[in-house]
Amino acid sequence: MGKEETKVSYVAITGASSGIGYDAAKVFAKRGKNLILIARRKEHLEKLREEILQISGSLEVIIKVADLSVMENVYALYESLKSYHIDTFINNAGLGNYGTVAEQSIEMTSTMLRVNIEALTILSSLYVKDYKDVAGAQLINVSSGAGYIVVGNVVAYSATKFYVSAFTEGLARELQADRSKLQAKVLAPAATQTEFGSVATNTDTYDYDKHFSRYHTSEQMAGFLLDLYDSSETVGIVDLADFTFKLISPKFPYEG
Amino acid sequence: MGKEETKVSYVAITGASSGIGYDAAKVFAKRGKNLILIARRKEHLEKLREEILQISGSLEVIIKVADLSVMENVYALYESLKSYHIDTFINNAGLGNYGTVAEQSIEMTSTMLRVNIEALTILSSLYVKDYKDVAGAQLINVSSGAGYIVVGNVVAYSATKFYVSAFTEGLARELQADRSKLQAKVLAPAATQTEFGSVATNTDTYDYDKHFSRYHTSEQMAGFLLDLYDSSETVGIVDLADFTFKLISPKFPYEG
Repeated sequence: MGKEETKVSYVAITGASSGIGYDAAKVFAKRGKNLILIARRKEHLEKLREEILQISGSLEVIIKVADLSVMENVYALYESLKSYHIDTFINNAGLGNYGTVAEQSIEMTSTMLRVNIEALTILSSLYVKDYKDVAGAQLINVSSGAGYIVVGNVVAYSATKFYVSAFTEGLARELQADRSKLQAKVLAPAATQTEFGSVATNTDTYDYDKHFSRYHTSEQMAGFLLDLYDSSETVGIVDLADFTFKLISPKFPYEG
Repeated sequence: MGKEETKVSYVAITGASSGIGYDAAKVFAKRGKNLILIARRKEHLEKLREEILQISGSLEVIIKVADLSVMENVYALYESLKSYHIDTFINNAGLGNYGTVAEQSIEMTSTMLRVNIEALTILSSLYVKDYKDVAGAQLINVSSGAGYIVVGNVVAYSATKFYVSAFTEGLARELQADRSKLQAKVLAPAATQTEFGSVATNTDTYDYDKHFSRYHTSEQMAGFLLDLYDSSETVGIVDLADFTFKLISPKFPYEG
């Protein structure tokens, strides 16, 4: 691919218009990283670009507006990124859907499956094909604590995150076995104060203090994401026992 | 729904044209169950219907031809079943895709995600909404040993089965917590001699003796499925240590 020769490199982040993705972009900007910001809401991305350029006016910030629940958009997005050297790709876009399986909107569940699973798998696969032999390249997929413990009243969401954890851990092991230079990693946040709560409950406001005894801010989680980026471990996870962030080996059993 | 009043009841099986689904249909026929057979290949379903009618000429056997990789078909299929009382719904349709993530066909992976995850989720959700208060109703989702242990060279497939295991175990717990009459169960086969191997490797033949030191026949697995059906446990799984079939509680940790 000759990708190694390119000078200017970028960190690409999906779901960058709010929450962990938004704050992750700012954290990477402070590290001097050029950014490709991907989300549906253009105004939010433009506001983020302004904030980033205040952090450092010399950074390149590319905005890509895309709804990742439609697979044509996912392929078109990746195709439009082919000219950039992306040394880190972060699949952060994801949505939740609160309620029991019996009472859930099936349409909303389908949209969730497309974004949390299918778009993440396509973008991961395309990135792996292009960057598996690129030194320093990283693919970071955002799962959840609910991707290791099944959580009631949000079972389908939890199952999508089991998919993300298993897929990314397995990919990390495959890449290591193949002596690929690309590293694949899983971030598993616990409750984080973002727009997730209000979207998942389909309400305007969601009181994290009321629903969770402990939660992290999205700034804290972005800091943990940077810790995972700097680490050679595969999984960065919030330990539910003491709410600390731990960098660990893959959690699921594996058969090579 | 008044579903309890209906006299004639059916076992519906997706992916009934071959493998575990085909033999499961025959096993339920021997129990005197009327059947709804669902798959893409009409001739295979017709051959199965003939075999079933030889087992018992008085059974009702309905054939539904549907490609479950297209969601419009999934909804249309379920709509066409509304007039039947389905006391057991078995989501058995599924496909594999061998090879590393780096070398896999993304198109084939997407088809796999639609069938193994999205179709299963939609059919499960529709069935739960209609039958959650029906005494004796069962939803059995076919996962895999690879839905509890990540398996290399078939990582995306394995991750789809983690989804199925987590979704179905979580659903089973929700139904129990709600005191619903419907039971949800997971079947987790290990290597089983079916068309799975040749489809997943995209070859005409696949030698199970060459690839696996041990495997079950689809007749054996259909017998285990019936054991799970008769049991009040949630998970029926082949123990990889001794290749015996075990009926157990949900395996994943759960937070209600």
